[in-house]
Amino acid sequence: MSNPSDQPETESTDAINVAPRTSVEQVEEGQDLAPKFDRDGLIACVTTDAESGEVLMLGYMNREALEKTILTGEAHYWSRSRQVLWHKGATSGLVQRVVEMRIDDDQDAVWLRVAVAAGTHSEPASCHVGYRSCFYRTVELKTGKIIYAETEKTFDPKVVYGDAPNPTLL
Amino acid sequence: MSNPSDQPETESTDAINVAPRTSVEQVEEGQDLAPKFDRDGLIACVTTDAESGEVLMLGYMNREALEKTILTGEAHYWSRSRQVLWHKGATSGLVQRVVEMRIDDDQDAVWLRVAVAAGTHSEPASCHVGYRSCFYRTVELKTGKIIYAETEKTFDPKVVYGDAPNPTLL
Repeated sequence: MSNPSDQPETESTDAINVAPRTSVEQVEEGQDLAPKFDRDGLIACVTTDAESGEVLMLGYMNREALEKTILTGEAHYWSRSRQVLWHKGATSGLVQRVVEMRIDDDQDAVWLRVAVAAGTHSEPASCHVGYRSCFYRTVELKTGKIIYAETEKTFDPKVVYGDAPNPTLL
Repeated sequence: MSNPSDQPETESTDAINVAPRTSVEQVEEGQDLAPKFDRDGLIACVTTDAESGEVLMLGYMNREALEKTILTGEAHYWSRSRQVLWHKGATSGLVQRVVEMRIDDDQDAVWLRVAVAAGTHSEPASCHVGYRSCFYRTVELKTGKIIYAETEKTFDPKVVYGDAPNPTLL
């Protein structure tokens, strides 16, 4: 979840050939794109920086977001807090260009390797709080203590997002 | 989801100091470990190879799995298909030693950087189908065509897991 005040987009896309799931063998070892959407119609998506390998965010896609990502080569997600299709970077300029898309064994998760564009008011970053990665904090082993791995924000979210509501839900 | 025939473990752990979620500021910019578990009591977990940066799997943890991972420094998950606590590698030997744990902005996802041990019958790997990563297939942009990124399995799952039921759900 990140940069969620980017513009929603709702127009439909050309369909990708998504196969029905017929067997474990087909899903795991076949040639079909046969994603498993959960009871909310979503599939989890890990997004990493294609160059550094850093995990930038963990988001979710509905079928339309998955298809738009494949067709356009730019990351689209489903915003669970705003309940809209979300073209990452549409407002902030922090677009994620997909270098490679992977899908996992049981096809209930995708992995995007992306190149993040510089924003209109920012160096490349992907976190709505202003950090490069949403995972800017370490959890210390044994203790569970929180330690900041990124000690400085990349951008000021107030400048980039203005008064858009914060998407973090308690 | 991977190597899911590893032994379940059900004993409880010493508690980590997990804080209640009281404000967006506390969750995003505070010093508290205040994870958000979903309606099933789970938090998503991205696991990457600490050396190569490759995404190995996307799993889920309940509170006990999260605490055990922090306390023991070895990855524990909640197996959604088997509905048991799952100490990765307990059967196969393919244990994931945690090098670093991160948590994201709204604390509804964790990222584990791990070193994978060699298994009893295998080189280091993390996918129950036999591949190094669960994300062994690419989805081609524009077309959605499936292309195998890993062309050879690292191990034979029949040797490592025997007759354990396949965890992939249709």
